[in-house]
Amino acid sequence: MTIIHVPLGERSYSIRIEAGILQTCGELWPDELAVLSNESVAPLYADALAARLKTNRRILQFNAPAGEASKSLDWTSRAYDALAENGFTRRGAVVAVGGGVVGDWAGFVAATWMRGVPFYQVPTTLLAMVDSSVGGKTGVNHLRAKNLIGAFHQPHEVIIDPLCLQTLSPRELRAGLAEVIKYGVIADADFFAWLEDNLDAALALDMTVLEKIIARSCEIKAEVVGEDERESDSIGRRAILNYGHTAGHAFEAITSYGELLHGEAIAIGMTVAARLAKILTAMPANEADNLITRQTRLFQRAGLPTQVPPGAEEAEIFAAMALDKKSRGKSLNFILPTRMGHVEKFADVPVEAVRKALGLDT
Amino acid sequence: MTIIHVPLGERSYSIRIEAGILQTCGELWPDELAVLSNESVAPLYADALAARLKTNRRILQFNAPAGEASKSLDWTSRAYDALAENGFTRRGAVVAVGGGVVGDWAGFVAATWMRGVPFYQVPTTLLAMVDSSVGGKTGVNHLRAKNLIGAFHQPHEVIIDPLCLQTLSPRELRAGLAEVIKYGVIADADFFAWLEDNLDAALALDMTVLEKIIARSCEIKAEVVGEDERESDSIGRRAILNYGHTAGHAFEAITSYGELLHGEAIAIGMTVAARLAKILTAMPANEADNLITRQTRLFQRAGLPTQVPPGAEEAEIFAAMALDKKSRGKSLNFILPTRMGHVEKFADVPVEAVRKALGLDT
Repeated sequence: MTIIHVPLGERSYSIRIEAGILQTCGELWPDELAVLSNESVAPLYADALAARLKTNRRILQFNAPAGEASKSLDWTSRAYDALAENGFTRRGAVVAVGGGVVGDWAGFVAATWMRGVPFYQVPTTLLAMVDSSVGGKTGVNHLRAKNLIGAFHQPHEVIIDPLCLQTLSPRELRAGLAEVIKYGVIADADFFAWLEDNLDAALALDMTVLEKIIARSCEIKAEVVGEDERESDSIGRRAILNYGHTAGHAFEAITSYGELLHGEAIAIGMTVAARLAKILTAMPANEADNLITRQTRLFQRAGLPTQVPPGAEEAEIFAAMALDKKSRGKSLNFILPTRMGHVEKFADVPVEAVRKALGLDT
Repeated sequence: MTIIHVPLGERSYSIRIEAGILQTCGELWPDELAVLSNESVAPLYADALAARLKTNRRILQFNAPAGEASKSLDWTSRAYDALAENGFTRRGAVVAVGGGVVGDWAGFVAATWMRGVPFYQVPTTLLAMVDSSVGGKTGVNHLRAKNLIGAFHQPHEVIIDPLCLQTLSPRELRAGLAEVIKYGVIADADFFAWLEDNLDAALALDMTVLEKIIARSCEIKAEVVGEDERESDSIGRRAILNYGHTAGHAFEAITSYGELLHGEAIAIGMTVAARLAKILTAMPANEADNLITRQTRLFQRAGLPTQVPPGAEEAEIFAAMALDKKSRGKSLNFILPTRMGHVEKFADVPVEAVRKALGLDT
């Protein structure tokens, strides 16, 4: 088992990673648990976990429908109803079993039930394992935009069983790898090189390789989040996690969320950002070319897209980038690599450079 | 002006108290403000405040209907809609203008909009000034129970203008005084004696006296909350604030919320608790009698009730006390004075003693 410590003072917690841990976890969890999941994941994992924990506990199960629609105030309200009807108290805790959508929604329920109850995360997708399970962001969507409603609420423990990836669709596994590759580029050149050597084993679901991938990704994210828990404004170190996200979010938005998986959009966004780095940073041209090539090759081997979506119009892309919650004011901000394993923030990036990096100036 | 510091580490804030401060406050607030209030309070205070602040800011106003019904997930959702429609960002802040209901609801909106935006409290009732404006509890009601949905979210600043009390109904002013008297009994015998000397001036809206009453109440609450921000379980010092609330909440519940104002129910609850203290604590009988008499006389001078509501049945009262969110498990816990100005926690209080204190064993 690998244990990653997320250092957040009195809100510190551990991430426990091990193939098969779903069969043994939870011994020290409270006597009263609300297991929140969705209708696809419950039969695979949540039902069995609830049945095992039920032997000496009071368990309430509540499932939302699968898909982004459950990440809403409406389904939050239905979860509250289930908790109230079952007399769920402040002594209880919420267990979230599922991908990022379930984690965000169930985490928000935990954050706001009786002013906050403990919350255990059991992410079952690679993206949730390496990204949303670290950092304490919880929330639901508003009709107008994603994640407008939410709270920071750190889990008490995160349980990651890489065996869950056996039931994940290959496309979602690949999309999760985009964020893994991101961690290499932003913070760890050795990890990036190790990924180049071990990507095929990961795609073949080698559990030892997957455990290492998840552990190192969580470790990097935990380190960054520990320095900037609440994503403070301009100075926030946490912003480096947004490498590939300025353009990536725009591609997600203009393809109306769903056509591109988040990881796919981020792979394209990182490709654009790497090209932008060649234009804007002091990185020597050959080093920049080398970074672009290695990153693109790894994405391609992982089956991830690296081309701006055909049909995406320039005006649309720029409008979506300016609307992004994280872009403050009207100037375009990007996180760009200045060498493999290191990124920096660039504010007020000239539109011309972005057009060039998008490949729209031809 | 009196300034009270609420010591909560990085979440510390100030309470500024001064007659007329509503005409000058807010100079350093952000450029984008959502002023949340209700339809009764807005014409009295929120509209004027918004108009004054509007000269160099973008202001959004949103009012709920007056009354407890606005403290709901539904009105929270409508507030989110207003914020989203107006493009309210993370750079903005929420200003809550009103009593405890507005503060709890608007505070919850602030706690959950984009994972938390700053929040300025402008309490306009005595109860909100001396109680809910300190402590960071925000939340809304669930159909099944009050305050089930909520979050801890400390304000950035609290602005208290005692002149607002000129438009408060005399009954609500008197109800607010119940919590003020409570602070004397639980933490400050000198303040209690001072209240005995100055109650008439307070009822006559003497601004100097009201400023002192509000300041000392906030100070005591701030001190307690500073030691136990999140009302931790059994050991929590914050529990002493619940003096009078075990029985008081029960009276509120069985008279179906509204017949008795919160402060009125708490006055009866404190009367019951003082009688219970005579039975259960080591306080000499004459000292206990003296405390009961002084407390009862002060309530009566303030026009507050001290008798168990006629028609309240024993079984009903005990059921409501056991259901109280704050009573853990089935045993009855009470906060009881052991001398004027000091209270302690008593767990597993015998039912017989409670019956006697309620005056139901006759």
